[in-house]
Amino acid sequence: MFQASVSGTVIKSSLIEPDGGVLVDVIVPESERGSKTLEAESMPKARLAKIDVEWVHVISEGWASPLKGFMRENEYLQSLHFNSLRMENGTVVNMSLPIVLAIDDETKKSIGSSKDVGLVGPEGDLLAILRSVEIYKHNKEERIARTWGTTAPGLPYVEEFIAPAGNWLLGGDLEVLKPIKYNDGLDHYRLSPKQLRKEFDRRQADAVFAFQLRNPVHNGHALLMNDTRRRLLEMGYKNPILLLHPLGGFTKADDVPLDVRMEQHSKVLEDGVLDPETTIVAVFPSPMHYAGPTEVQWHAKARVNAGANFYIVGRDPAGMGHPTEKRDLYDPDHGKKVLSMAPGLEKLNILPFRVAAYDTVAKKMAFFDPSRSKEFLFISGTKMRTYARNGENPPDGFMCPGGWEVLVKYYEQLQAEEAMPAVASA
Amino acid sequence: MFQASVSGTVIKSSLIEPDGGVLVDVIVPESERGSKTLEAESMPKARLAKIDVEWVHVISEGWASPLKGFMRENEYLQSLHFNSLRMENGTVVNMSLPIVLAIDDETKKSIGSSKDVGLVGPEGDLLAILRSVEIYKHNKEERIARTWGTTAPGLPYVEEFIAPAGNWLLGGDLEVLKPIKYNDGLDHYRLSPKQLRKEFDRRQADAVFAFQLRNPVHNGHALLMNDTRRRLLEMGYKNPILLLHPLGGFTKADDVPLDVRMEQHSKVLEDGVLDPETTIVAVFPSPMHYAGPTEVQWHAKARVNAGANFYIVGRDPAGMGHPTEKRDLYDPDHGKKVLSMAPGLEKLNILPFRVAAYDTVAKKMAFFDPSRSKEFLFISGTKMRTYARNGENPPDGFMCPGGWEVLVKYYEQLQAEEAMPAVASA
Repeated sequence: MFQASVSGTVIKSSLIEPDGGVLVDVIVPESERGSKTLEAESMPKARLAKIDVEWVHVISEGWASPLKGFMRENEYLQSLHFNSLRMENGTVVNMSLPIVLAIDDETKKSIGSSKDVGLVGPEGDLLAILRSVEIYKHNKEERIARTWGTTAPGLPYVEEFIAPAGNWLLGGDLEVLKPIKYNDGLDHYRLSPKQLRKEFDRRQADAVFAFQLRNPVHNGHALLMNDTRRRLLEMGYKNPILLLHPLGGFTKADDVPLDVRMEQHSKVLEDGVLDPETTIVAVFPSPMHYAGPTEVQWHAKARVNAGANFYIVGRDPAGMGHPTEKRDLYDPDHGKKVLSMAPGLEKLNILPFRVAAYDTVAKKMAFFDPSRSKEFLFISGTKMRTYARNGENPPDGFMCPGGWEVLVKYYEQLQAEEAMPAVASA
Repeated sequence: MFQASVSGTVIKSSLIEPDGGVLVDVIVPESERGSKTLEAESMPKARLAKIDVEWVHVISEGWASPLKGFMRENEYLQSLHFNSLRMENGTVVNMSLPIVLAIDDETKKSIGSSKDVGLVGPEGDLLAILRSVEIYKHNKEERIARTWGTTAPGLPYVEEFIAPAGNWLLGGDLEVLKPIKYNDGLDHYRLSPKQLRKEFDRRQADAVFAFQLRNPVHNGHALLMNDTRRRLLEMGYKNPILLLHPLGGFTKADDVPLDVRMEQHSKVLEDGVLDPETTIVAVFPSPMHYAGPTEVQWHAKARVNAGANFYIVGRDPAGMGHPTEKRDLYDPDHGKKVLSMAPGLEKLNILPFRVAAYDTVAKKMAFFDPSRSKEFLFISGTKMRTYARNGENPPDGFMCPGGWEVLVKYYEQLQAEEAMPAVASA
């Protein structure tokens, strides 16, 4: 099921003014790189996993601002218990996910009582310095229970990154020796909050509405985004800009990979389903937790840092099926409810949306009309992937043909690859 | 292990002014009881379990103020995710435990779309009205995970009250038809926040320091409380009053029952270990969750509502052993850390304390001196109960003789009773 259309009821009066000045920037200036790298070489080292590098990237560009590094225990506890941090001046900022760096016993021992630690990437290169470090216990069970509201086995982020991680957390202030790049042909999409704010200014946006996604864009999404723009114009904004903001970090294995999604999104703009003049497509570098109401706050907060003042939230944001029971892990309405009450996000304009579905009479995606419910077809993400995997076509008007072709090609290739290992191991 | 002695570092400058005016009072005036009871009789009914009556009691006297009844979903979600509620005027109040009323499918059906519900006690008598009710899902797993930070089997409150409870929660505003009484000979100890505030005024207290406990008072506790008073006098307060505030609601089976504890506390005052002139002993009607850092906020918040402005917090408050692993469920330091950062409790003065233990040389409870650690004996609650159960005496000076006698008598009687059923069933 998919939901669309702006409901005016939750829109609040005040805008959050984009203010580049509040963003933490912990990337070392080029002039100091040499000396800092030399300094880092003499420090005890902690090895980063791929997921840790994604978080270094996120912190380094200010998405989690005012967080200046991996959380120390005081920040971690506030995040776990209050989904927010109280700053020294008394202001409260939203911070719903623990952004932490796990280390093992051996690394803890090698750090000893050192104040500063060099962070080494998966390929062995020095990426960053962590200053004034603090080491504290990584109680995985409690972290998982409080973040996901369940400890059932099968949570993707937990299985991949928390279960195998060390029993200690290493907090401190980050100094990143050079900007994080992936060299995957998509780095030009990875605009930092500062770059995004600059681009919004250049386009003279007077409203920025952000759309977080980790799936291909179909015409229901497009209907919603275009309708949101229409509503914002009606409200008096002259130049609302859409930030189409696919998540670029870790996603679970059966989600469509980033490169395929970016190609699909390009087609959607090429085919004119979304207007390139009023749309910015960029990649949000965060990994997915699939932690529903807890995570949707992070998704919104990070976009506020990038200058968005309207956030579109749908059914069951950042949700997934319960890993061991036949039901949604989260109540599909809790995400937008929790977001609308979240500490530190009081000024964000939240745009919940009505259900959209495939109208079998009009042969297009349309807002669901309960009076003729039998004429609507709900096409879930799973159903969409099944169509593409089986080489079947979805109903006309579900997705633009160029975008659909990208998906079909991806699943053809995937099936060919899946057939390979069997041959190789025979 | 037990901790004692005020550390001055966390004490904040501003006092919370006792202000009876902010307390919610949802007890129906005597003049309206007849008509309201008549009205309630025509409403659909929900049956209360014993634990629900304890919560009705708590809400009715304003311990959870500004909460006016059992939580509706918006309050429940804020409590689970943020441990606090944002009020309409923008102020944030602490609310760390979900205070909810579970109902089963049948009760939900019988309520239908009624706005008001009559609440019926375990003995079938009409106790209260719940107004403008809202029914929402009781996701037990999520509630447990977010409240306790674990879903391991064996949490006392969960096993006793959540596991067998219904799959729906019923929220609404409470009107209590008459004050809740237990007729157990201890009702005179159950002073409401209003009564306590009046008593503090009568005694012209200029500081009130609260001590939450669910165990017998030994001389280590007394040392701590007397030392706190000394420190407050040093800080310039003229008349600091101690609120010795044992918890009177549900406690787990192996805790010492309330009536025994009250008798023991009386002896401690009779024996002069605590000064009756500057001490008020009263019962806090809340049930125990054993939810550590989440619950300690509730324990402190409720005492603020009763006029306390200093709160003493020790090692692992409201904690217990992990139900399935050989470790404390919570990090023993998290309680005071979380409390010190809790939203809505910024103005509370938190008094953490140093470790106290039995000094085998001085033959009394004293602040632990690490330089002669071998001369100290740590007597845990479990060890204390083992002494009493086995009829052994703890070291001289551990507890006043009158208080100790109460415990020994209780365990003798318990063992006699435990022997009985075997005879009866033979």
